[in-house]
Amino acid sequence: MKDNELRERAAKVVPGGMYGHLNAAIFAPGYPQFFESGSGCRQTDANGREYIDFMCSWGPIVLGHRHPKVEEAAQRQLAKGDTLNGPGPIMVELAELLVDTVPSADWAMFSKNGTDATTQALMVARAATGRHKVLMAHGAYHGADPWCTPSMMGVTPNQRADMIEFAYNSLESLEAVAAEHDGEVAAIIVTPFKHDSFEDQELVEPEFARGARALADRIGAALVIDDVRAGFRIDLRGSWEPYGVRPDLTAWSKAMANGYPIAAVTGTDALRSAAQTLYSTGSFWFSAVAMAAAKATIETLRDENGIKQMELAGSRLRDGLARQALAHGFGVNQTGPVAIPWLSFEGDADLSRALYWSDACLRNGVYIHPWHNWFLSAAHTEADVDEALEGTDRAFAETRAHFG
Amino acid sequence: MKDNELRERAAKVVPGGMYGHLNAAIFAPGYPQFFESGSGCRQTDANGREYIDFMCSWGPIVLGHRHPKVEEAAQRQLAKGDTLNGPGPIMVELAELLVDTVPSADWAMFSKNGTDATTQALMVARAATGRHKVLMAHGAYHGADPWCTPSMMGVTPNQRADMIEFAYNSLESLEAVAAEHDGEVAAIIVTPFKHDSFEDQELVEPEFARGARALADRIGAALVIDDVRAGFRIDLRGSWEPYGVRPDLTAWSKAMANGYPIAAVTGTDALRSAAQTLYSTGSFWFSAVAMAAAKATIETLRDENGIKQMELAGSRLRDGLARQALAHGFGVNQTGPVAIPWLSFEGDADLSRALYWSDACLRNGVYIHPWHNWFLSAAHTEADVDEALEGTDRAFAETRAHFG
Repeated sequence: MKDNELRERAAKVVPGGMYGHLNAAIFAPGYPQFFESGSGCRQTDANGREYIDFMCSWGPIVLGHRHPKVEEAAQRQLAKGDTLNGPGPIMVELAELLVDTVPSADWAMFSKNGTDATTQALMVARAATGRHKVLMAHGAYHGADPWCTPSMMGVTPNQRADMIEFAYNSLESLEAVAAEHDGEVAAIIVTPFKHDSFEDQELVEPEFARGARALADRIGAALVIDDVRAGFRIDLRGSWEPYGVRPDLTAWSKAMANGYPIAAVTGTDALRSAAQTLYSTGSFWFSAVAMAAAKATIETLRDENGIKQMELAGSRLRDGLARQALAHGFGVNQTGPVAIPWLSFEGDADLSRALYWSDACLRNGVYIHPWHNWFLSAAHTEADVDEALEGTDRAFAETRAHFG
Repeated sequence: MKDNELRERAAKVVPGGMYGHLNAAIFAPGYPQFFESGSGCRQTDANGREYIDFMCSWGPIVLGHRHPKVEEAAQRQLAKGDTLNGPGPIMVELAELLVDTVPSADWAMFSKNGTDATTQALMVARAATGRHKVLMAHGAYHGADPWCTPSMMGVTPNQRADMIEFAYNSLESLEAVAAEHDGEVAAIIVTPFKHDSFEDQELVEPEFARGARALADRIGAALVIDDVRAGFRIDLRGSWEPYGVRPDLTAWSKAMANGYPIAAVTGTDALRSAAQTLYSTGSFWFSAVAMAAAKATIETLRDENGIKQMELAGSRLRDGLARQALAHGFGVNQTGPVAIPWLSFEGDADLSRALYWSDACLRNGVYIHPWHNWFLSAAHTEADVDEALEGTDRAFAETRAHFG
């Protein structure tokens, strides 16, 4: 099989055959490492097997692969140029669109990785306050730079020395660490909901969100929402807008350009002059094609009500899985927003059921992940979800047969 | 003029109207901020003025804009997919090509920014040695992460605490700081030549390069070459290969994919298992299109002897500028490799001549930079250089007329 052949070749020229979040080595042997193509809400692996895909490339694909409006905008820009001596007019247009779309945004800066955006947001907050400490939730993923990567391998204690942890959704814990570092806190960085790997997701308590906002105001720190994973999937205005809580700074990436590489920080007027003082840049941060794709993606999500489509498809998936789990006698927890869902099995601490079921889903043409949240796209129709549910139903049956 | 109109709009939605290395606000009013398109070795700004371009988008454009082989490879991949649930076969092919091309490379890891690659290289070295300190040359640019960005705005002292500076090309200075941090040094990171902004460039002293290699071996630290700026322009095998000095790790980006966003770290077998332990990743680090573009770029440079073409064009430019400066009575220094040249005026500490001359070059259809090194591409023909030299000659004449 081609995937195995590629793995053998990769083992020679790539450390561990693969690295980071995409290493498939820990999964069952049939789990695909390499992918050939994508179309709409489907992906085909290197062995030629097609799946209805609920990972959406770990978030970036929000309108479906090869969406005509996005591709057309990207091609139109590419015909003129991508990486030039300076930004194209598209950079101004995209910044204007973000400022128009996101109520907390008075300005935008662009980069390439979600990590670039979270790092840059903290730099803005530190430049604005002249303070060093940043409060973050224990276990939260804010990227893979030394200050935030989940592993300490290759990281020095000094690189983490200014990060202080609190417990997500515990205002008491947040206020305690803020008091402990009175006068030193530049920022509170927080994901819009708790989406740590290996754990059930947890929506934010509105009281916590409002309390974090009030605390940040009281201590003169910036409230930073890390909307890299959830942004443009829950609410185009920002994922805490439904709670009426507006951040000072927001980090965006993943779904922003339907798979084209881009990230952004947006912020308020109060932080504009601080943002201006940074030296934060990159060789491809001004490239025009990804910006054209981002503008087309956000406009299409807005004009075609993509958020609503993801909600509908996600609800249909969640309801179907709930019925199936019950029918097959599995206790499951389905957590997170329906557009960024996850399913865990009760009493499955070693993930054996999750791993078996996810592998059975693959065999039945459905791509999900056993320990990382999933993603819906606006390309998932009712018919796609129903077809996927046929596969997940067979997967539940196989899992029941296996575990007895 | 469109550029001014765009600047006015950008001032509202982008901090400072622009940020990082591309802010044109400090230049004369006619200096273009926004660019419309690129073709071969020429770029057209937002006002429709075309230049023979010697910045090559600050390095990435190495074969010329819209090179047919690169575009064809990118389009072929794009038709299948870009950002998928896992890497495509192209990732293995690209890693194999790097290992075949670069003698010090036994493996490769990919990312998006040059900063990703330098950061990742240091993480590998730290993971391998269990040590924290890194020796870097004073004033060297290794990217814009908090550990290396040239400004301290938004950066905390802790984020710099493990970086120790030495003087470029001074083996004595390097050995002194290594002795001072005996047993603590994970890596020595060094650019292949001294290319700090605002200063004449300085080629590496072969004795320094060999001494750094010997020192790294003696103290058990990794020698990291930051070839982000120079890689794939001086020697496809790595920029110190002509000196017979091979690094343990190399950071690559800029010219690697002719403008498509990608970066890489390559390393030796001895560091493979350490590389494998990192959690270093990004949402777009496995995207296939930029990898297809990188493979086509490196193969084209190799098959069409692109390095030699850049040398010829760069030599012709340098010789021509030397003759013109002499004829117009200017003392100038032309430094660095001819493919990554720079020209400074003698006795021009406030850069007034450089700024006037670079602006005059623009008015005469030649895009260069007054305080950052320039870049040749393989698309620069003799005829292009000769045409550019007509413009630079007029620019020297105007500069002479202005300064008297």
